[in-house]
Amino acid sequence: MGRLFGTAGIRGPYLEKITPELTYRVGLSLAAYVGGRGSATVGHDVRTTSPLLAQLAAAGLMAGGLDAIYLGLVPTPVLAYSVPHTRSRAGIIITASHNPPSDNGLKIFDDNGMEYTQSMESDLERLILTGDLKALHAPWNGVGKLIVGTEIVEEYVRDLVDRMRVHSPRIKLRVGVDCANGAASGVTPRVLRQLGVGVVSFNCHPDGLFPGRCPEPRPDVLREYIKGAESLGLDALLAHDGDADRLALAVPGRAFVKQDLLIALFAKHKLEERKGTIIVSVDVGIEVDEVVEKLGGKVVRAKLGKTHEKLKETPGALMAAEPWKLIDPSWGLWVDAIYQAALLVKLSLESGKKPAQLIEELPSYPSARISVKLGSDDEKQVLYEKLEEEVLSAFTRSGKERVTDIDGVRIDFDEGSWILVRKSGTEPKIRIYGQARSRDKLKELVEEVRRLLICTADRLGVKIQGVEEHIDLGR
Amino acid sequence: MGRLFGTAGIRGPYLEKITPELTYRVGLSLAAYVGGRGSATVGHDVRTTSPLLAQLAAAGLMAGGLDAIYLGLVPTPVLAYSVPHTRSRAGIIITASHNPPSDNGLKIFDDNGMEYTQSMESDLERLILTGDLKALHAPWNGVGKLIVGTEIVEEYVRDLVDRMRVHSPRIKLRVGVDCANGAASGVTPRVLRQLGVGVVSFNCHPDGLFPGRCPEPRPDVLREYIKGAESLGLDALLAHDGDADRLALAVPGRAFVKQDLLIALFAKHKLEERKGTIIVSVDVGIEVDEVVEKLGGKVVRAKLGKTHEKLKETPGALMAAEPWKLIDPSWGLWVDAIYQAALLVKLSLESGKKPAQLIEELPSYPSARISVKLGSDDEKQVLYEKLEEEVLSAFTRSGKERVTDIDGVRIDFDEGSWILVRKSGTEPKIRIYGQARSRDKLKELVEEVRRLLICTADRLGVKIQGVEEHIDLGR
Amino acid sequence: MGRLFGTAGIRGPYLEKITPELTYRVGLSLAAYVGGRGSATVGHDVRTTSPLLAQLAAAGLMAGGLDAIYLGLVPTPVLAYSVPHTRSRAGIIITASHNPPSDNGLKIFDDNGMEYTQSMESDLERLILTGDLKALHAPWNGVGKLIVGTEIVEEYVRDLVDRMRVHSPRIKLRVGVDCANGAASGVTPRVLRQLGVGVVSFNCHPDGLFPGRCPEPRPDVLREYIKGAESLGLDALLAHDGDADRLALAVPGRAFVKQDLLIALFAKHKLEERKGTIIVSVDVGIEVDEVVEKLGGKVVRAKLGKTHEKLKETPGALMAAEPWKLIDPSWGLWVDAIYQAALLVKLSLESGKKPAQLIEELPSYPSARISVKLGSDDEKQVLYEKLEEEVLSAFTRSGKERVTDIDGVRIDFDEGSWILVRKSGTEPKIRIYGQARSRDKLKELVEEVRRLLICTADRLGVKIQGVEEHIDLGR
Amino acid sequence: MGRLFGTAGIRGPYLEKITPELTYRVGLSLAAYVGGRGSATVGHDVRTTSPLLAQLAAAGLMAGGLDAIYLGLVPTPVLAYSVPHTRSRAGIIITASHNPPSDNGLKIFDDNGMEYTQSMESDLERLILTGDLKALHAPWNGVGKLIVGTEIVEEYVRDLVDRMRVHSPRIKLRVGVDCANGAASGVTPRVLRQLGVGVVSFNCHPDGLFPGRCPEPRPDVLREYIKGAESLGLDALLAHDGDADRLALAVPGRAFVKQDLLIALFAKHKLEERKGTIIVSVDVGIEVDEVVEKLGGKVVRAKLGKTHEKLKETPGALMAAEPWKLIDPSWGLWVDAIYQAALLVKLSLESGKKPAQLIEELPSYPSARISVKLGSDDEKQVLYEKLEEEVLSAFTRSGKERVTDIDGVRIDFDEGSWILVRKSGTEPKIRIYGQARSRDKLKELVEEVRRLLICTADRLGVKIQGVEEHIDLGR
Repeated sequence: MGRLFGTAGIRGPYLEKITPELTYRVGLSLAAYVGGRGSATVGHDVRTTSPLLAQLAAAGLMAGGLDAIYLGLVPTPVLAYSVPHTRSRAGIIITASHNPPSDNGLKIFDDNGMEYTQSMESDLERLILTGDLKALHAPWNGVGKLIVGTEIVEEYVRDLVDRMRVHSPRIKLRVGVDCANGAASGVTPRVLRQLGVGVVSFNCHPDGLFPGRCPEPRPDVLREYIKGAESLGLDALLAHDGDADRLALAVPGRAFVKQDLLIALFAKHKLEERKGTIIVSVDVGIEVDEVVEKLGGKVVRAKLGKTHEKLKETPGALMAAEPWKLIDPSWGLWVDAIYQAALLVKLSLESGKKPAQLIEELPSYPSARISVKLGSDDEKQVLYEKLEEEVLSAFTRSGKERVTDIDGVRIDFDEGSWILVRKSGTEPKIRIYGQARSRDKLKELVEEVRRLLICTADRLGVKIQGVEEHIDLGR
Repeated sequence: MGRLFGTAGIRGPYLEKITPELTYRVGLSLAAYVGGRGSATVGHDVRTTSPLLAQLAAAGLMAGGLDAIYLGLVPTPVLAYSVPHTRSRAGIIITASHNPPSDNGLKIFDDNGMEYTQSMESDLERLILTGDLKALHAPWNGVGKLIVGTEIVEEYVRDLVDRMRVHSPRIKLRVGVDCANGAASGVTPRVLRQLGVGVVSFNCHPDGLFPGRCPEPRPDVLREYIKGAESLGLDALLAHDGDADRLALAVPGRAFVKQDLLIALFAKHKLEERKGTIIVSVDVGIEVDEVVEKLGGKVVRAKLGKTHEKLKETPGALMAAEPWKLIDPSWGLWVDAIYQAALLVKLSLESGKKPAQLIEELPSYPSARISVKLGSDDEKQVLYEKLEEEVLSAFTRSGKERVTDIDGVRIDFDEGSWILVRKSGTEPKIRIYGQARSRDKLKELVEEVRRLLICTADRLGVKIQGVEEHIDLGR
Repeated sequence: MGRLFGTAGIRGPYLEKITPELTYRVGLSLAAYVGGRGSATVGHDVRTTSPLLAQLAAAGLMAGGLDAIYLGLVPTPVLAYSVPHTRSRAGIIITASHNPPSDNGLKIFDDNGMEYTQSMESDLERLILTGDLKALHAPWNGVGKLIVGTEIVEEYVRDLVDRMRVHSPRIKLRVGVDCANGAASGVTPRVLRQLGVGVVSFNCHPDGLFPGRCPEPRPDVLREYIKGAESLGLDALLAHDGDADRLALAVPGRAFVKQDLLIALFAKHKLEERKGTIIVSVDVGIEVDEVVEKLGGKVVRAKLGKTHEKLKETPGALMAAEPWKLIDPSWGLWVDAIYQAALLVKLSLESGKKPAQLIEELPSYPSARISVKLGSDDEKQVLYEKLEEEVLSAFTRSGKERVTDIDGVRIDFDEGSWILVRKSGTEPKIRIYGQARSRDKLKELVEEVRRLLICTADRLGVKIQGVEEHIDLGR
Repeated sequence: MGRLFGTAGIRGPYLEKITPELTYRVGLSLAAYVGGRGSATVGHDVRTTSPLLAQLAAAGLMAGGLDAIYLGLVPTPVLAYSVPHTRSRAGIIITASHNPPSDNGLKIFDDNGMEYTQSMESDLERLILTGDLKALHAPWNGVGKLIVGTEIVEEYVRDLVDRMRVHSPRIKLRVGVDCANGAASGVTPRVLRQLGVGVVSFNCHPDGLFPGRCPEPRPDVLREYIKGAESLGLDALLAHDGDADRLALAVPGRAFVKQDLLIALFAKHKLEERKGTIIVSVDVGIEVDEVVEKLGGKVVRAKLGKTHEKLKETPGALMAAEPWKLIDPSWGLWVDAIYQAALLVKLSLESGKKPAQLIEELPSYPSARISVKLGSDDEKQVLYEKLEEEVLSAFTRSGKERVTDIDGVRIDFDEGSWILVRKSGTEPKIRIYGQARSRDKLKELVEEVRRLLICTADRLGVKIQGVEEHIDLGR
């Protein structure tokens, strides 16, 4: 990880990490990085500092010799979409996604609309931090111009609606859409209505202070909205984060639907169209494997945050997903939660099954996610190394276990249960995931891992600062 | 009533009553009517046909020699506000308010932002219907130009927020705002949040098909949203119609608050600032009288739909109101439900009392509204004349009753109860209103009027097609 | 010729022939004529009434169900260019070309940017005059939207400059450009400068009152500018009409260059690239034939005003031209004087020959154009019929003459001279054209035709109201 | 003089002196300098780098907490006009006036539209160079917004035309306007035409490469245009520099009119309206004194470049002028060459006298301007000090001479002749000015000063690098 780019572009507090000067510099360096002439698109989310920063990113691109196509307020997936659709060389979105309103950030997209890979980010970062300022600038008669692009959201909506339209819907749906006052406020509800669905919108007026709710669509944040949607008798609640690369789903009777099931649902749909490979991150549960295997597909696992890079290496893959991040390459190489919302509605209208029923038809097993907070990155490193050893020796006695070590260590057991232990990429935390066919089995697994962790920490003298545990009971 | 203008401007189905040609003609005739040079503002609501019609209204103004300041999507009160604030000569809003999405319409405002009076509408209508086309047009070197006005909504918001800001709020509020997917979607929630209030928005993305709910904010339409707002623990639900000249209020424990109480609340506020006259329509209840008299003010009654004309004739009046239409001349001469929403929040933050408590502190008496549907306007006329006679003779026996005959006949009884019988201005209906200090007394009054009505109809051979009855029980 | 469309679209005095209502009606009917969904582009010239009429044309298109891409002020060739480049279905330009400022008009272009043919105009005219108003309108949920297209002029300039750029110019040029304060004011001078030429602009600020000169670039109108350009030592003066479908050229030493030579110059260039057919109108002189034959090409003659229709019927033709109207199908199917200006500069920079020299190298023979004004269209008809007879009998005695009768009657004599007699398509005039290898021969021919005319008129009792005669002496 | 600000704001080569970063920093510092909330206007000239730099200046203002009203391409006087007319706190124009196309620069205006005084520039410069970056920035919820201001040029034109309109013009005029392809291209010709004058425009399409001529309207630069205007029979040629704060005038028979006569003409007009004070710089000739004294006014002299500061200190002054810089405070506190052009036309139409005649009626005496180039600023200092001494002793023998020492030393002799010796404020040059009632007397004076200069330089061992001499012979 570089000094600027983290797991999701550059992000941090305005004026501390994210300054106007840095943003100008990113635009300037990006123009130099792609080289030559042409254009790049720039868009921004609803934050109070976003229009200013987008203007500076555009100025940087222009000073570097590219024309800047300024799109104004757009969801992140629409920015990604804009790059290939305007034949641009690159794209910049100003957003801090679900961070607090006083933060901001940038993400960079290549000419296909794919988020920059880690190696592209490293090259760009070098220019930003150490590039010669004068060499990066185009000469006086080579500066780019500003083009105000007003039509891209309309094109995106038309394109998506054309693709998702169901000619003979078999049921009537009425859904709630909650855009967290974010960038999709004018987009997702409009797309769904054009698909023929009744839409009740919550928090769908743009406001950079996020007055309705925290922009992260976690179960606890959405709890009261899920209740509200039930009072209104809605068939589903679809909720975004601030820049609409995330989709949360809640359905009557089941409330918050875990992300693994959304991945399984979309994988099922892709495989019903055509056999092929589904890429998922190592933490994704066995519901996806079960669905994929049943339909003759193949699951390939990738590191967290790197499923798009794996997709690039896997020609013909049907889909790449980790929780909250789902890419359908037949639509585009970007994470797109507006697309997901539209696809969900389409699957429902076409099949005549309400979202709750679509979810009901999927397998669902108990699973657990545990976060262990430590005092420092050093302690994380020390503890993790020993813990990995202990876990491997404790859980691979039968010899029939399968071990996957691309991102931490995951052990799949014969009867379908599994555990995964890995270090967080951004925080001093160790993460433990587990899943089993029954609640008792899950409880047993989790207890054992927890015991190992505590013993190991004790022995190494590492103090555990706190533990967070999320259990989903499946059905 | 003219052939074009009804109680709320010109309104009707697109392509039947409201055509592009007519709309052009209205703009053209309005330019001729105001005469000379200068500008007029044009705005529109969210309907699918509204941008087209606004473009034609603007073209008409230009062809008639005025510059057209094109504001795009704006709530009706913002259009009214725009006229004096751009020093324009007139304003046109394209809206059919809470009519179905396939309808549309126009309202005209004078240079003060006041809706045209009936006599101005008649003069204008004559030009529209019979004006010489060539004489109405400016010559080739006198046509006006199009000015795109982008800042007026921002100015309105800033102006209103500056006026309503409470420097030391005594409580925290969290309210729901439901804009019916209409023109205030980007305005009311933003104003309230800037006043320091937590805002959860419902149906606040603009959509001319009104996918969330019927745009008329009636109690039955809002019922499920009132429940939803309670699930979310909100302190109030504020709901507009499509163009934001109407405000409905619901508070926990009381649900839908009748309009008379909103009028009483705002009258109270005005009189606490300064003694003076409050103009209300004849159908407004005694809660307002009670509040006004207690604070040393004076109530003046006016015809329905004409309180703004009465305001014009009453220098120094503090307020003019009928149910759903409230004008505070210290802010502007137009009905403004965004202003009402902001004022409600201000009163609450300043006093430290939640909206429910503000309402609770007002008097509230049982009241009834009865609509009697007949077969034709002729029958309405015949029945009404006789009924008026009967009512007068039946209810004014003591001699101590006060009779008000400016719009139908209203009889106020000594002990505080009253009845009002009047013809509808737009439909073949007779309307009966009543109020009393107790439910029993109200029931008695209503029964008596109903009996009179049935007997009279019977005697005249007029067939009653249907009866709708709304009773509010007060407290 | 229809009641509306003449030789150059619909044109006439504002409010008399060209009304806002008619313009709306044209847009509406055009949408119905092309049918279905999609877009059409709309642009306008500098006249005071043009923005208003363009707004109405756009509104008509929208009401008819097409999206209107509004381009604002553009030269006619840029409007034509915009249709295929935005994948639109049609285009409308509001212009009266070189008519007085109080006139206006419309021209219609098909999806290739070609001006509507006479038969398309007839079909459209029928809809405009007699189409059912309600049937022409799209329903309330089918109206189109307005898209403001800001980039088309930039794309046109970039595209043209890319095509015409000369990488190693062999001379330096400094030219005058006079846009008649018309729509190309911001375009032609910019294109030429980007091609590397010094540009002095005259009358290149847009002004719908044409304060600099009459917008028709006739020799008499340009006389003083030609002198001014010489004072400034410029290598050429390039002058447009108001909407830039016409290019006049003046060079030092020769002043105004007749259009036949421009046609010859461009035909030469096309044929040097590739052999093929050159379409010219019947009034075009033998310089073109001489140039074309020398280079192995073929000349095909067409009616005046119909060379674009002939082009449509002639696959692979290299060029279509009549005086003032030159189409190069490898660039686009429209008359484009900006293209002509750029091409002239390119030929000069590439060859190292100044425009005067390029012209000097062409053959040039004396020619005459005579206009005979009569009292009425009836007299024109009567006189013309008899005159044609007389001319044929007088001039075809040898039997070696070639007669062309596609538009009036043209007789080519053996030794290279020719005469043409035809009726004007728009005015009560008979036009006589002649050319010969020597001045004496030309004089003789002209005298003979004139004598025939006078005798014939005398015999028929037709009174000649006036005669205008333009003689170009060649070299 | 500071490190950044010179005699005309900040100016220099793009990327060397004038960088995007500096421009952002100027906007940021200016916001901090004026403090608090509100807006500032930003405009730019035609240069290729100007839109980019204006975008950065606007971003700086926004980051500092002011709203930026972005005006796009405007002449410098229109930017100045925009500040009071939008009730803004300050204004920034991006322009390098008549410098080469690869240069750029900034000028700052206060809330009255007056150029910043030297002391304001110093304070601002300190912030730019040494201000704490974080302290200059507004917090995340305090950044300003971008407002695109589209109407200001129209308002300026309307305002100026209303002021200058002559209701009964006594002659017809036809003038040439040459805007040097600069920012007034769309303004000055339009204003003059609206005043009823025939306008032939030269170089009036905006182009940042200045393809028509060097943007400095010097006599030598304009020579060929003056000839061209004569060929066209125009009554005057009015020529601007690139940003329209300068006006040059040429009239038939006299060619280039020296600036002193324009100052005299306008002073005459002001004094005919009302008696009062006329402020002029020390180098202005006696024609102005003669005119002013005759009309009972008073001349006050000021340092070059500081007449606006003197104006600020002189309540009720009628006018402030130095060659090329004329301020009429009844219109605004800025130098405005568009205003001058309009006033000239007004004086002519009203009086019935052509510009040549207006000039003819003024006194005009021979005058000289001599520039002596030295090797360094040090040599300039040394030589100047001695020369001043010598000049004083040589020319003040009679005791009747008047000495003015506010900017160099000016000696006025009894019979009306005078000399002025001063150092250049920006270059290693000494400037000598002289004027006399006759050519012989002027020659004599100039010879004497030259002799003194050469002797003094010799004695001090200072080498003179070159001498430029401009003589105007008067009449």
